[in-house]
Amino acid sequence: MTEFAHESIVDGWFREANESCFPGQAFTLKVEKILYHAHSEFQDILVFKSTTYGNVLVLDGIIQCTERDEFAYQEMITHIPLYLHKNPKRVLVIGGGDGGVVRELLKHECLTHITQVEIDETVIKLARKYFPGMSYGLDNPRVQIKLCDGFKYLQDLANASVEEKYDVIITDSSDPEGPAEEFFKDTYFKLLKNALKDNDSLIITQTSENIWLNINYLQNLLKAAKSVFPNTKYCYTMVPTYTSGQLGLMVCSPDETLELTSPVRVPSDTEQENLKYYNSEIHKASFILPNWSNKLLNNFH
Amino acid sequence: MTEFAHESIVDGWFREANESCFPGQAFTLKVEKILYHAHSEFQDILVFKSTTYGNVLVLDGIIQCTERDEFAYQEMITHIPLYLHKNPKRVLVIGGGDGGVVRELLKHECLTHITQVEIDETVIKLARKYFPGMSYGLDNPRVQIKLCDGFKYLQDLANASVEEKYDVIITDSSDPEGPAEEFFKDTYFKLLKNALKDNDSLIITQTSENIWLNINYLQNLLKAAKSVFPNTKYCYTMVPTYTSGQLGLMVCSPDETLELTSPVRVPSDTEQENLKYYNSEIHKASFILPNWSNKLLNNFH
Repeated sequence: MTEFAHESIVDGWFREANESCFPGQAFTLKVEKILYHAHSEFQDILVFKSTTYGNVLVLDGIIQCTERDEFAYQEMITHIPLYLHKNPKRVLVIGGGDGGVVRELLKHECLTHITQVEIDETVIKLARKYFPGMSYGLDNPRVQIKLCDGFKYLQDLANASVEEKYDVIITDSSDPEGPAEEFFKDTYFKLLKNALKDNDSLIITQTSENIWLNINYLQNLLKAAKSVFPNTKYCYTMVPTYTSGQLGLMVCSPDETLELTSPVRVPSDTEQENLKYYNSEIHKASFILPNWSNKLLNNFH
Repeated sequence: MTEFAHESIVDGWFREANESCFPGQAFTLKVEKILYHAHSEFQDILVFKSTTYGNVLVLDGIIQCTERDEFAYQEMITHIPLYLHKNPKRVLVIGGGDGGVVRELLKHECLTHITQVEIDETVIKLARKYFPGMSYGLDNPRVQIKLCDGFKYLQDLANASVEEKYDVIITDSSDPEGPAEEFFKDTYFKLLKNALKDNDSLIITQTSENIWLNINYLQNLLKAAKSVFPNTKYCYTMVPTYTSGQLGLMVCSPDETLELTSPVRVPSDTEQENLKYYNSEIHKASFILPNWSNKLLNNFH
């Protein structure tokens, strides 16, 4: 018997319900064993072993990743901006304490420096223990971990030298209700822009939404980003354990002429062998939307 | 209070669980009211009004469609083969008693004749009552409804004249466990081939699966289809209330030179205005798969 319990787990099933974010629908996963549950300083953290998706990390009641399908998210949020950059050297990851994005970044030999800024050390500790396949890259000498608030870290960067700024910034945060609230506002995009090295730099952020749920929210998020980066586009990745099976991402470039849908580099043969999800074709396809959502997200002013 | 009840509905939530098809995971929808439940001669039929997805049709415990997202499935299974045909005139729909595919077919002015073969009249009656937005096309003079077994209908067609055969055949069936069992075997694909008018004809079928669930099953289904139609390809549509948020489709052509990923016609302006999901770009994108599944479904022998 386990020493842990969680209000979201009843009769051996975890239930992801959130009446404000996705009313009237809920995904459920069968639980083999609850591995960990606690309130950290910042959020409610649950780790359980599922019967068919491996270990599962849940923050504030929302599934963050499962061992079986996490690569679908980690690869797309990492490699879309990385293959849009001609020669990336320095990358900043805001959030992402599970280590999945860092693992993907380390596949790019060209990178010399990866900064990971995670507010909640508990997430990193749990990832090391329960998600070794995701977190093993955190000990790599190219990786520097900073335990602090990403928003504050960016504020401090505003006056830094260009050498301390970044080619790519990936916001791999939890959803806006909770410690990541500030990552979904225009003030955040201004900070991101100030932390970019030059016109070739890129940012990507998870939107916490998809076209089937709150598309008005996505429109407003795109507007906020476009007020800072006119060249901003919505794309998505398909993850079976995320709500509606997909999650929206948003890519922004200070270069208004860059075609975000077309990667400027293609994976080398060795890189391609290590990719389970990303390829140049799915990069392009991830920007193609059904008509109704294309109108709402790509053709508004 | 309602007069109906259903074992899948507990505490006001419908739960789609099937330990053999998708073990360890289950999607749930909040129920406003149960509208209908009965065992027909062929299957268990449930209709309920959900709080956020409109009316929902459930056959043998599996969600077939909801009013909110049904177009994602109906448009893709219909327009992918229709826009791959230069000049379609006659279309056969096997299953599809809800009328959604017929509604989409009627958007093609070039079609002169649509035959709908549905084994279960109850589904048609319920669609007329509870899904008027899907079923209204069933009364169109271009549509002929046959209440019989699709497999038997195809057997009878084998000796028919070429004028009685079809340009496009769409298998819009329920899943293989139940009355649709025969629609997932090579004998079925042979019957389909015999029912096609000529080398320009096409078939499409729902696979009842997607890449995240039983990919071995998909491999075997593709093998069965390829034994009859060497030019066969897997594609998919994204439907938030289907398991893992997506459903695989399989397109087959007797013409080995036809590039199934590229539509040969584009929607006219009027047609495009009436399409909420399909466009030529998403046609192409729907064949692009993540690496691991691309290897398993497109590069096997």
